[in-house]
This record gives sequence, C-alpha cells and structure tokens, in this order.
Amino acid sequence: MAASLKLTSEYRCFDGTVGFYCHQSETCNIEMRFAVYQPPQAKSERVPVLYFLSGLTCTEENFIVKAGAQRYAAEYGLMLVVPDTSPRNTGIAGEDEEWDIGTGAGFYVDATEVPWRSHYQMYSYIVRELPALIAENFSVQPEQGIFGHSMGGHGALVCALRNPDQYQSVSAFAPIVAPMQCPWGEKAFSRYLGTDRDSWRTYDATELVLNANYQRPILIDQGTVDKFLVDQLKLELFASACAKANQPLNLRMQPGYDHSYYFIATFIEDHIRHHAAALLN
Amino acid sequence: MAASLKLTSEYRCFDGTVGFYCHQSETCNIEMRFAVYQPPQAKSERVPVLYFLSGLTCTEENFIVKAGAQRYAAEYGLMLVVPDTSPRNTGIAGEDEEWDIGTGAGFYVDATEVPWRSHYQMYSYIVRELPALIAENFSVQPEQGIFGHSMGGHGALVCALRNPDQYQSVSAFAPIVAPMQCPWGEKAFSRYLGTDRDSWRTYDATELVLNANYQRPILIDQGTVDKFLVDQLKLELFASACAKANQPLNLRMQPGYDHSYYFIATFIEDHIRHHAAALLN
Repeated sequence: MAASLKLTSEYRCFDGTVGFYCHQSETCNIEMRFAVYQPPQAKSERVPVLYFLSGLTCTEENFIVKAGAQRYAAEYGLMLVVPDTSPRNTGIAGEDEEWDIGTGAGFYVDATEVPWRSHYQMYSYIVRELPALIAENFSVQPEQGIFGHSMGGHGALVCALRNPDQYQSVSAFAPIVAPMQCPWGEKAFSRYLGTDRDSWRTYDATELVLNANYQRPILIDQGTVDKFLVDQLKLELFASACAKANQPLNLRMQPGYDHSYYFIATFIEDHIRHHAAALLN
Repeated sequence: MAASLKLTSEYRCFDGTVGFYCHQSETCNIEMRFAVYQPPQAKSERVPVLYFLSGLTCTEENFIVKAGAQRYAAEYGLMLVVPDTSPRNTGIAGEDEEWDIGTGAGFYVDATEVPWRSHYQMYSYIVRELPALIAENFSVQPEQGIFGHSMGGHGALVCALRNPDQYQSVSAFAPIVAPMQCPWGEKAFSRYLGTDRDSWRTYDATELVLNANYQRPILIDQGTVDKFLVDQLKLELFASACAKANQPLNLRMQPGYDHSYYFIATFIEDHIRHHAAALLN
C-alpha cells in the first residue's frame, strides 16, 4: 500500500470487502477520503473499476450504505470507488457555511479563484490522482467507468466527455447537466472559477457534448417528481445537445421517482449492467 | 386511514412505495413511528406482511435505508413493516441517558417496572396493536412473518415462538438468543421486568423454544467476526435448546462477517426468500 494510504475501517459485504480509506492528496493538498468495494473476483484477478461521484452534502459513505450497489458489483466483478465530494477541514474561511459551496460541494472542478484554489482541485483529483492511487494499490484492470448522482452526475458526465479514452462507460442519476444554466452551477462556478463564463464551458456537459466524440451510449435515469428537475437539472437541455451532436443518449424518465437514494437503489442494477457491458469483454 | 395514522413522508422505490408513519399508540400511550414498504403487487391485491424488528439505537429508518430489502420484497410481493425500537420522548426520567436502556432499546418486552411500564409495552405493541393497524390500513393478507437483527432478532424469535399461529415464518440476523444469560439482556430485563428472573423466561428464546411448538424451520445468519458473538449473542445456547426440543434450525455461520448492515444486506435475499416460501402458497 502507498505510504500515505490508510485503511480506516473494513467490512465483509457480498463475499467482497467494503473499505474506507484516507490519504494525503497532492492534488488537493490535504487529506482526502474515499470508499472502495472490492468484489470477490478481485481476490484472484484484476477487475475493472467503476467510479461513483456523489451529490451535494454527501461523503464517501452515502452511496456505499444506501444504493445497494455492492450486490451487483459482486455479481459482475467490478470494483467500486466512491470519493468524498470535496476536501474537508481545509481552514478556508467559510468552507462550512453554505451547503452548496465548500465542504460537500466540490462540484468536481479545479478551482482557479481565491480562496478555493489552494485545495479545491476535485477534477484533477478524480481524473488523475485517484485512478493512479487505485491502480497502485488494488487489483484492477485499466478499464474504467464513471457514474454519479446530481452534482456527481454532472461530475461523471464532464469527466467522461473530456476523457473518452479513459472512461469506457458513463451514466448518471438525476444529473446537473447544464451547470451554466442553473442556480447551483452558476453559484458554484462563479465562486470556484470566477466571473468569466467562458472558463465554465469545460465543466458543462451540455456544452462539452457538442464537441465531444464520446460515441458510446450514455444512460441517464431521471425521476419525474424530482423537485430539482425543472430549476436545477434541466435534462431537456442535455437531450437537445446530444441530439444535435449525434451523441447516443438513453434518457429514461421514471414516473413517480424523486431525487433520493430510494430512486438510485431502484435503478442501480441497470446502471451497473450498463457499465459491465462496456467494461467486461 | 385510521384517524390517528399520519403519513410523514413517502418515496417511490422498486415500483412500490416506502412510507414513514406515526400514530397515537394506545398500547404505548404515546406517539409511535413505523415504516412500511408496499410492494407493487399491493396496488391490485392483498399481500402477506413481513415485520422487521431492528437492533439497539435504530429507528424505523435504518433497515429501510441500508438493508436493500425492498428489491426482494418487490420481487416476491411482500409488505415490509418496520417499527421503531422503542417509544420516544415519553418524559420518563433518564430515557435518553443510556444507549442500551430506554430510547432505542425497548427490547420488545412489556415493562412491568416503574418508570418504564407507563410507555414501554413493545411486545403487545408489536404482536397486537401494530398488526391490527396494518390490517386496517393496508392491502394485506392475514399471513405474517417476522425477522430482526440483534435485539430485534431476539424480539422476532420471542414473538414467533409465543405466537406460532400468528407468525408463519421467522428468521434473524445475529440475534440475542439468550437474554437471561448476557449483559444486554440482564440489564434490560432487570430494569423493565424487575429482579424476579422467573418473569424473564417468557422473553427468552432459548427458554421458550424448549416448550414451544413452532415446527417450521428457523433461519439464523451469524457473522463469525461479530464482536458481540461471544459475550452477548451466544448462538450456541439457542442451537442446543433447538436440538433438545427438536426445533428445526438453519444456523449459518458466515465467515468474516460482522454485526453491521453490510452483513444484513449480504444475506437479506435469502431471508426474504425464506419468508416468501412460507407466506406465499
């Protein structure tokens, strides 16, 4: 194990292992935490990795506890890696004051603005540092998929669209797809990236997909009674952009479902099967 | 809906509905809370009910959020009912002071001692008041099964062994099987039931099974690295009593598993299938 990687707790689960880890992140310049589910197959072979990016206010624990994903990761032989949603305890003034900025709200961008830029480098952390750390310390193949929920759905889409060679599959639950056009995104991007909106485009899936060359189908599930759908998520903007760019999109509007983990748990099997189809061959 | 039954929140889940309820309990003489998962089948027919009793410190929410049970309740068409683990906010002095007595620690007994007896009537609540309330308000058949975890495993075994005609199936995860012979049980029973140990026997599965006539097989899963196994759970005492009484017992020692919901989630499918086999016919 890399010198700085520390296992903080471990649990047997579906004949594999849930582990919670922390390490000193060079990218974020502070201790970062993540969870890993090692499926039983990883005891004897290298397996593909599936990253899950969580939503606002979550830690590395919510998805592992609530989504029911380990059942299917064990069935298909995928390693799950679930990072925290931001650096914590950085000492940045006001980091804990607002639930949609700072702690628990890293938005998967590399901040360029003071005071956030000294620690809030979540994009580079997710795309580069964390995969290198996982490759070094776990029994993994190079194949990677990525998915997420809400703010984390935004993160997953951005990571995949900007790095199509790195991520062989992508999906999302109720993602923020057009952060430049919704209150959560506008607030976070103006704080982390400054007021030049041109600099925001590289973190906006609806912008990125127009010029991306991802080709493989994107799966998105969205609940129809999700209270954030109309004002924050705006799936129709991404659907239009995908249509314009000929990006295959399987957008499933799920009647009666909301924004919660009850919704995620209901469709997690389909998402893991979507990733398994791309990652296992 | 009965006048006093109040729906506090509701979520679509696996094409059914998770609901959290509260009502004024006559038995406990205070507001009580419980969760219900109504599977999709309940929209068009009456379905059997499966009660889950939770462990120390839990509310009606833990199992619903963490166990992954709704997936299988939806598959088999069982209604899940998950009561809280005790009355709350009763005003009894000291109710919140100890994690293993009072709030979150009702132990599924009818307390006979002051100050608890005015509200802590969990056995009668679970066996009589709650099933009547469920029958009155939900689309259910008379068939009932019951299972639980730790303190709730104790509760499930006691309810089933004392009421074999009411509960057609029973199972448990890491149950307290001999409360008269472990520190948790001795502490709780002496506070709730007083110092006459003879009065404890009707709440001790290892005692009850000797004279019960349950006949149907009991399923128990127990992790081998559960830190409570040796001092508190003592499964071997129940196994011996079952052998002596010719009670069929499927006790599965699960290597490497602990006392957590990661353990429960791993084996929940088997338990729900065990109950479905008895309740659906």
